[in-house]
Amino acid sequence: MAAKQTVLLLGATGETGSSILEGLLEANQFNVEILVRPSSAEKPAVKKIVSRGVRLRVAELGAPADELAKVLSGVDILVSAIGPQDCLQQKVLVKAAKDANVERFVPCAFITIAPPKGVMLLRDEKEEVYNEIKRLALNHTIIDVGYWHQISFPRVPSGRVDYATVIMDNTIHADGNAPNILTDLRDIGRFVARIITDERTLNKYVYTWGDVLTENEIFSIVEELSGEKIEKNYVSAETIEKQAQDAAAELSQNPQDPSKRYPAYISQYQYSKYVRQDNRPWYAKFLGYLDARELYPDFKPISFRECVQEALDGKGRRPYSG
Amino acid sequence: MAAKQTVLLLGATGETGSSILEGLLEANQFNVEILVRPSSAEKPAVKKIVSRGVRLRVAELGAPADELAKVLSGVDILVSAIGPQDCLQQKVLVKAAKDANVERFVPCAFITIAPPKGVMLLRDEKEEVYNEIKRLALNHTIIDVGYWHQISFPRVPSGRVDYATVIMDNTIHADGNAPNILTDLRDIGRFVARIITDERTLNKYVYTWGDVLTENEIFSIVEELSGEKIEKNYVSAETIEKQAQDAAAELSQNPQDPSKRYPAYISQYQYSKYVRQDNRPWYAKFLGYLDARELYPDFKPISFRECVQEALDGKGRRPYSG
Repeated sequence: MAAKQTVLLLGATGETGSSILEGLLEANQFNVEILVRPSSAEKPAVKKIVSRGVRLRVAELGAPADELAKVLSGVDILVSAIGPQDCLQQKVLVKAAKDANVERFVPCAFITIAPPKGVMLLRDEKEEVYNEIKRLALNHTIIDVGYWHQISFPRVPSGRVDYATVIMDNTIHADGNAPNILTDLRDIGRFVARIITDERTLNKYVYTWGDVLTENEIFSIVEELSGEKIEKNYVSAETIEKQAQDAAAELSQNPQDPSKRYPAYISQYQYSKYVRQDNRPWYAKFLGYLDARELYPDFKPISFRECVQEALDGKGRRPYSG
Repeated sequence: MAAKQTVLLLGATGETGSSILEGLLEANQFNVEILVRPSSAEKPAVKKIVSRGVRLRVAELGAPADELAKVLSGVDILVSAIGPQDCLQQKVLVKAAKDANVERFVPCAFITIAPPKGVMLLRDEKEEVYNEIKRLALNHTIIDVGYWHQISFPRVPSGRVDYATVIMDNTIHADGNAPNILTDLRDIGRFVARIITDERTLNKYVYTWGDVLTENEIFSIVEELSGEKIEKNYVSAETIEKQAQDAAAELSQNPQDPSKRYPAYISQYQYSKYVRQDNRPWYAKFLGYLDARELYPDFKPISFRECVQEALDGKGRRPYSG
């Protein structure tokens, strides 16, 4: 029997990274290891992962490529779920991965479908990393997941899903009819585990999805499952576009300030998802993405309805809540 | 019978544009029209095309998108073979083509295979146009052709191909073993005529080729066909890389100066083709290009040998010689 492939995961304690870690372990076909910064090696979340038998590799991402290449020795597949603030640090990792003969690099994508440049800062910075990957001819797969089920459902008047939702103001953006690609956070890792060993996805873009739903459909599902009537607050396309422009202008004053970056991310997501309507299958196909559901017809993703039902049943979990 | 599709060609009097014009007319299935600037409308080369029954549309490329959109009214396919100095003027054309419901835009690509960013200025500027196309979700096809047969063969000692060659110093770059994608200039238009009506190429990258040859193979072919021994001059990879860096540094002092741009184009071509070895089928596939020869197995391109034999027979033509 061939030795298991070694998959090294960067960002394993984040939301996306945690899902990928679980998906890789669940697949039971990889030697899973994680890469952390020296400052994170002693963190409880990291120790918890190590206690499950996952090997730890430690490196400063700002290190020279030749030092990083040594740390990547023996890695077959490198998966990055680095935080948005540190996205561009992946550029040196690309060089190191090439030098270390990593067979496939999965850079941190894992967002909505959006054009390569000029709409979302989050995507623009990833594009710089993708261009570096292409320049160095490093084998790769870029995986986007749309928006998560977990951050896509509104609260209901009784307050019983407040503990699990991030959409507290029940906003409908524009007319609420923009279709959006959604993936359950927990399915990301399961998709990743399949995609990274698939020859068909080598040097390709792939998107995952559990559902494709408009906000109006989402609100209807929640009303149906909860039996509660939800009051909707509308924000116009013009307002969304202006908010995105204003946030970008604010950020340009101080491009590295996280307190300016996050509002830009959020408002650009809204502009891209609801005004431009980028995050949908048609546009993904236009941009050259493969559809993970077509690649894996047997894969049964968690539906949006199931995720909402769990929240109503008190079994939900709000992302970023630790 | 369905009406013929209207194909509007920009840059019809250039080398690439002329080939495309001939290919489109030869296909005998399009309503072929050309787009020229007001300052070019009275030029003999334009009048000569018009005298063949090709309709002329006139527009200033710097015009607002809504004015340009009117000029594009009724155009099904827009093909751009604009000069490198004016590449970025295509951005407004993208908007106009979207507004005018052009079914497919073929932006000016038609160069060697190279990464999207950071190696060739020529490619970097095209990438800006491609990104605009993607941002506006305009249907498109990007067609690259490698280097032309016509500018790839050396002189022979007797001087009998001097009239037709541009490689007067018989340089071998690095070790001369880098494979390069080559297309006969006259075949570009024939490939284009097929590609632009092909559903398989919609929103895809495609490359054409007649041969894939190294410089050493090229010199051998010319020696064999001419019966003459060619003296080779070698330039090292390090020198080529330094020349590319120096030319880029020079250009950065005055980015719009054509006298600085052309040396940068040439030295970056050499660096990309012979040091990085970008212009080859493996890298094209890596970058997601379709192979036009796989798409059209019945297409018989003009081989490099045929092109050299023509030159030896006195039937060659040096590009850019009017």
